[in-house]
Amino acid sequence: MAHDNALEALVEGLRRLPGVGVKSASRMAYHLLQHDRPGAQLLAQALEQAATRIRHCARCHTFTEGEVCATCLDPRRDATRLCVVETPADQAAVERTGAYKGLYFVLMGKLSPLDGIGPRDIGLATLFERATDGQVQEVILATNFTAEGEATAHVIGEALRARGLKVTRLARGVPAGSELEYVDLGTIAHALVDRR
Amino acid sequence: MAHDNALEALVEGLRRLPGVGVKSASRMAYHLLQHDRPGAQLLAQALEQAATRIRHCARCHTFTEGEVCATCLDPRRDATRLCVVETPADQAAVERTGAYKGLYFVLMGKLSPLDGIGPRDIGLATLFERATDGQVQEVILATNFTAEGEATAHVIGEALRARGLKVTRLARGVPAGSELEYVDLGTIAHALVDRR
Repeated sequence: MAHDNALEALVEGLRRLPGVGVKSASRMAYHLLQHDRPGAQLLAQALEQAATRIRHCARCHTFTEGEVCATCLDPRRDATRLCVVETPADQAAVERTGAYKGLYFVLMGKLSPLDGIGPRDIGLATLFERATDGQVQEVILATNFTAEGEATAHVIGEALRARGLKVTRLARGVPAGSELEYVDLGTIAHALVDRR
Repeated sequence: MAHDNALEALVEGLRRLPGVGVKSASRMAYHLLQHDRPGAQLLAQALEQAATRIRHCARCHTFTEGEVCATCLDPRRDATRLCVVETPADQAAVERTGAYKGLYFVLMGKLSPLDGIGPRDIGLATLFERATDGQVQEVILATNFTAEGEATAHVIGEALRARGLKVTRLARGVPAGSELEYVDLGTIAHALVDRR
């Protein structure tokens, strides 16, 4: 610990969290010390255990404590379908729908040349190997509908189609429960093109 | 650890931080695990050390690792003046001005009857004892200019004046660098009344 002061060290430590500046970090530190020391101890333990125990699933790359994650090990999942998502949070969102029973591949990122994130950083070679295991028949691209997510889907789609796989993308269209008047034009245009 | 899952435990732990909901906590957990495991270890250590080492200064109530904080121990500080602030962050703000060389008393809160925070919770008895040590000649009330801060200043001021001490309050007025057109009316009215 380079700090001679435990409070400064704590503020510095909290600033490592994304979106936390020096003012929020101070506020968090004061809160924990003044009102929630058990919370501080609990968080310290959780961080320590997570940092040492959690690694990546050998099959789908998501966070797991075992060699292979529970989803990949589940024999009830449909091994002929592989859904590619950017993050474990996206995977959780797809899971919550209850509409998908296949397996996943979690990129843990997206192609972003401006930030220097290339195919190697998001494990595309591992994905291509995983997708061509002979069992997978359809790869569903569920990266985000942002510029980077679309580019990532495009690159993966091209590569997998070249390997003879069926590749689909989540449908674009009008969100459930929305009124056309308030939906952006790009979305309506896509919904028109993809009408069924 | 009640969780069978280190990732869930980490998200739960991060939610103990003020202003962090389940979405931010997940984002923080993913960030630490994917991009900054040394940061997670460092934060765990800092939390552990802060929670065990930091206590309250016996004289001014601020956070310190010793029996008495460095400011209270500094012989160059003017022991005849005592500045009362709500939090260590407020104390740091006053210190940064470089315009104050006296000592402090940190309430670690403010009177807030609606939240059940009374005189005992912010150590007013300790403050009254501290202020009547025979050395202190002036108590400067630097609680915030909010409803609760004003009420706290009022209660402390009444009590200390009754004990024969000189009590002052930070001046209210137009902030440095501001244009009158954009200053709220209450502030201008105060600045008029307190003109000098």
